[in-house]
Amino acid sequence: MTATDMKHEKRIAQFRSMVGRRLASYLRAGRPGDLSAASRYVMAGGGKRVRSALVLCSCEAVGGAAASAVNAGAAIELMHNFTLVHDDIMDKAPSRRGRATVHVAWDLNTALLVGDILLGHAYDLLLRSDPRILNDLTASFTRGLLEVCRGQAMDLEFERRDDVTTRDYFIMVEMKTGCLLSMACEMGGLLGGGSRKEVLALRRFGRYLGRAFQLQDDLLDVVADQKRLGKPIGGDIIEGKRTYLLLTALDRARGGDRRVLRSVMSSGGRAGRARLPRHVVIHRVTEIYHRTGVLRDTERLVRANTRHALAALDGLRPSPAREGLRWMAEQLVKRAS
Amino acid sequence: MTATDMKHEKRIAQFRSMVGRRLASYLRAGRPGDLSAASRYVMAGGGKRVRSALVLCSCEAVGGAAASAVNAGAAIELMHNFTLVHDDIMDKAPSRRGRATVHVAWDLNTALLVGDILLGHAYDLLLRSDPRILNDLTASFTRGLLEVCRGQAMDLEFERRDDVTTRDYFIMVEMKTGCLLSMACEMGGLLGGGSRKEVLALRRFGRYLGRAFQLQDDLLDVVADQKRLGKPIGGDIIEGKRTYLLLTALDRARGGDRRVLRSVMSSGGRAGRARLPRHVVIHRVTEIYHRTGVLRDTERLVRANTRHALAALDGLRPSPAREGLRWMAEQLVKRAS
Repeated sequence: MTATDMKHEKRIAQFRSMVGRRLASYLRAGRPGDLSAASRYVMAGGGKRVRSALVLCSCEAVGGAAASAVNAGAAIELMHNFTLVHDDIMDKAPSRRGRATVHVAWDLNTALLVGDILLGHAYDLLLRSDPRILNDLTASFTRGLLEVCRGQAMDLEFERRDDVTTRDYFIMVEMKTGCLLSMACEMGGLLGGGSRKEVLALRRFGRYLGRAFQLQDDLLDVVADQKRLGKPIGGDIIEGKRTYLLLTALDRARGGDRRVLRSVMSSGGRAGRARLPRHVVIHRVTEIYHRTGVLRDTERLVRANTRHALAALDGLRPSPAREGLRWMAEQLVKRAS
Repeated sequence: MTATDMKHEKRIAQFRSMVGRRLASYLRAGRPGDLSAASRYVMAGGGKRVRSALVLCSCEAVGGAAASAVNAGAAIELMHNFTLVHDDIMDKAPSRRGRATVHVAWDLNTALLVGDILLGHAYDLLLRSDPRILNDLTASFTRGLLEVCRGQAMDLEFERRDDVTTRDYFIMVEMKTGCLLSMACEMGGLLGGGSRKEVLALRRFGRYLGRAFQLQDDLLDVVADQKRLGKPIGGDIIEGKRTYLLLTALDRARGGDRRVLRSVMSSGGRAGRARLPRHVVIHRVTEIYHRTGVLRDTERLVRANTRHALAALDGLRPSPAREGLRWMAEQLVKRAS
């Protein structure tokens, strides 16, 4: 790690702890009915706090003070966790980040309501930002909320469809993942008093970053080191998730390969007469991904989107914070989990 | 019905249709992932649209144009229905307003997500209000959202407790029901450009109205005409719901009466050796409510809260809209369903 890397890493860690402290003190002052224990459990779950770091760093990158973006950064983390808690209910996920999900550790009703309350808290914290730009901030935040919900609805719909295209995939991913990243950068730009051109550049940076991020997520399910990923490899394959890898491979595969992928799509490849062991299915599908060049092409696409993201940063004046954004983008793509 | 009554009724019906049209045109322009069919199903369910009528009427009562309050009125209906859809999941309610609930007509995941999306739409519509007062409006709206969620969390917690007091009950009801009514009146006052004193008077009106409204709801479960109520009489009793009636009766009852009420509280009175038919339990409990004076005292309390609500209106200048608010309050208390 170079000295520059260490400098960036330290600054991002500072952003993370500024937001963490704000969240902790806000949630500590819980009122009756706040379901404080469950709310704190969710927010203490860790995660990389990528979104809030983007808000604070974007704010600095247009000349603002990171401190003025802390409430909005905390708000976006709350909104992100609202979606995770509700998504986990819908996916019947038993665990997240190595801990039991709320609907398992408590129950469905608590999880449902904790999600709702976290969203309420998100707006409450957001509204403590500079009143002069609050209308733009809440508009951006609400657009983000709606897009994430729509993306999740499309994702659920995909599970019931076997004609999903890679084009559908990109639309869904843009809404479900990309949107919060571009919103984070946009909000940071607004909070820092950036010009219209700067705010648009940040938005563009976040959008490409979101795409690279999601494609990398899809890749990691297959190529990651299981220990560092924190969950079993090949989970997406076994769930028959419509990832970019699966959809692209389906486009390219013929004959037996195609039948294998189709069966993965309908039942995670484990239905019918040949109820194969999990690791066999994963091995077969990974082999098809290799052979059809899907892994190689997805890696290329991750790099291309990262390049586009970095190019968008040229719309900002040079500054340490702009380099910080560049560094974050590179880290996200290099990440192993 | 007097000529004045008819005039008020007509005006309130106009408010209702202004909001209904805005909701319909907004939801018609659904985007992918909007779960439009389910969203429209929820919003077409009717209901009395009390909250939006209060917004528009309060706006007029301080000299504003009702039309400028339509977006906020529609927003509050969307938020109210967000809470109903999620509450119905939590209560495992099979029907509402005589139609299947969303989680029954569709499924749990759709209902969960439709609730989330309705809340997103609520903010989206709210943000189309006059930008000059938007900060106050969104602050009021967000306070309301949080209070409703907290009220629901307390309500769920009550189900597991057998030491709930009437004081706890009033705190919960204030949050779960009263808050949206006082918020509706407050928002109308803000939108109409009311003075600080006028906005506070409206808020106060809404708060007392909310209390009267909820107590009346509790009463109707026992004394209503089943056909007009649209659901079986005594539902609260069978569910062991901690209503004002039950909690007050528990305070007063001794001996056998107390045992009956305790068993209602723990299991709707239908557990243990003596698994009595539903109508027998309802009859017994209603009889205890009569004998301990609970019904009479609750009716008094409804009237007292209504009086306080009407008195708060003295803080406004005389106007047809102020009389409209008075009329609405009287109607809500006279209502049979």
